[in-house]
Amino acid sequence: MCKNHDYTIHGAQHHFGWDNSIAPVQRAEPGSTILFHCKDSAAGQLGPKSTVADVAALDFSRINPVSGPVYVEGAEPGDALKITLDSFVPQARDGAGFGWTANIPGFGLLTDQFTDPALHIWKYDTSTMAPAMFGKEGRVPLKPFAGTIGNALAEPGMHSIVPPRRVGGNLDIRDLSAGTTLYLPVEVAGALFSVGDTHAAQGDGEVCGTAIESPMDVVLTIDLVKDARLKFPRFTTPGPVTTHLDARGYEVTTGIGPDLMGACRDAVAGMVDFLCATRQMAAVDAYMLVSTCGDLRISEIVDQPNWVVSFYFPRCVFE
Amino acid sequence: MCKNHDYTIHGAQHHFGWDNSIAPVQRAEPGSTILFHCKDSAAGQLGPKSTVADVAALDFSRINPVSGPVYVEGAEPGDALKITLDSFVPQARDGAGFGWTANIPGFGLLTDQFTDPALHIWKYDTSTMAPAMFGKEGRVPLKPFAGTIGNALAEPGMHSIVPPRRVGGNLDIRDLSAGTTLYLPVEVAGALFSVGDTHAAQGDGEVCGTAIESPMDVVLTIDLVKDARLKFPRFTTPGPVTTHLDARGYEVTTGIGPDLMGACRDAVAGMVDFLCATRQMAAVDAYMLVSTCGDLRISEIVDQPNWVVSFYFPRCVFE
Repeated sequence: MCKNHDYTIHGAQHHFGWDNSIAPVQRAEPGSTILFHCKDSAAGQLGPKSTVADVAALDFSRINPVSGPVYVEGAEPGDALKITLDSFVPQARDGAGFGWTANIPGFGLLTDQFTDPALHIWKYDTSTMAPAMFGKEGRVPLKPFAGTIGNALAEPGMHSIVPPRRVGGNLDIRDLSAGTTLYLPVEVAGALFSVGDTHAAQGDGEVCGTAIESPMDVVLTIDLVKDARLKFPRFTTPGPVTTHLDARGYEVTTGIGPDLMGACRDAVAGMVDFLCATRQMAAVDAYMLVSTCGDLRISEIVDQPNWVVSFYFPRCVFE
Repeated sequence: MCKNHDYTIHGAQHHFGWDNSIAPVQRAEPGSTILFHCKDSAAGQLGPKSTVADVAALDFSRINPVSGPVYVEGAEPGDALKITLDSFVPQARDGAGFGWTANIPGFGLLTDQFTDPALHIWKYDTSTMAPAMFGKEGRVPLKPFAGTIGNALAEPGMHSIVPPRRVGGNLDIRDLSAGTTLYLPVEVAGALFSVGDTHAAQGDGEVCGTAIESPMDVVLTIDLVKDARLKFPRFTTPGPVTTHLDARGYEVTTGIGPDLMGACRDAVAGMVDFLCATRQMAAVDAYMLVSTCGDLRISEIVDQPNWVVSFYFPRCVFE
């Protein structure tokens, strides 16, 4: 897809963290289509030849850059941006698509069980976007999207890029892919929109804390909905959201109990155990793999006092 | 599907609650295929002509009967039952498929917001299983399954049927439909397996507390996996799990915050608001409708301290 764009935000035009005093890199009228050259979430600190030692040496002050901010003319608090996601094109490294998935100690759903750094480097074909290989047998379907997309907060000062908020940010919603329309609350004049943290694939939950982290060129169109009074982001998908994953069905593990977080942890740990037993994988490899393609779903949240969380691993990865 | 069965468990052969001293209604060898005539979760207290007054008058001592228990020869604690779900055939009432969805005060994800009883009666074609109508415009795709399926607990005494446990029970997992294989931990000799609470359709979460509650005939095959040492139920689906819902994509609302339960409530309340605004529905109708077809998914659970829950409403219902 090659939609014409009105503006280009270059790779150097990024920032770390959210602060509504950061000067806009571009002013744009509603209806503008913009190309963003997004860096990956390590801001280039990892590359095709990186090793686990590079994970241990990551400079966290340079994590998760976002491209922008863009000042949207006429946007005021109470409005919403309507973002139409036009295309995601991975940037090649050494002539191929590049991505990384890491276990970063202290970050992820099972941090207590996975205390050592680990790294998987992905290589894929950016023209065909065929599934990326994990080891000799795993094939992870790709569906690129932006992990971080949002507006500046009203609250002054610098705010960590890590947590998402009602204005968006590090949402890591796998279905914010091409064709989806996203509505984001505006809290400051001009909205001060930024995007980055592009992922070639991710499962619902992003359970190990990272996805297939890849630098990408993103084209999107920004419209303005006046006085939308939106409490949280919402979005509309143009069609099915799991056809890249679901053709052969799923292996599913569950967690059951009165605490949703505990049930999530049990369900994911159960899948790691299952893959270790059936595929002879190292546990940390299974943990990183399922983060890129396994989906956390809440099966029931009403049968007091126990809730059921299910973790869906797509069988197409190995079958 | 008309798989031959070895045994029939008739409608009267049901029980309320889990108690491992309940005498088996049938002994069966591993490999047996069994037909269960399951009652609906109100044990017949509601019918095609019921009104909301009947919801207020429900006898809760007769809620959620399950058919069984079946003693599986050779099953011992530490084993797992392997249940192959062969078919679900809704029983006709007044010549058509019948179902009910209710808001039962004190039960459901948004009990504080929906304090009055409400009832929707469904009528559908059991031969075509075409989508069931909700009002004049809503069409809810059907995918029948068993809401409650499980084994007796090791702990003596009577245990409420409401909460699911590691041996299964009121799991309300929408994808336990025909073709799926379910593995359930065994805690007592013979497993003492029962099934019931059949649903014609449900979304992930069953957010209002009820689904399309329909009596059904269930055929399933029980095998035994010795010494499986399963912590929680797991299952395998034969193919995609949302093709009945996803053709036209989804409207999605989100909840974002440090508490998963709160984020779930925000996401579902957001969808109720959205449907009220865009479809001119009464809030309680929207709440009951989304319980039968909307899916709760965890988009990210690692970006501390805020998690993102997304609630997916299938656009095919109205488009």
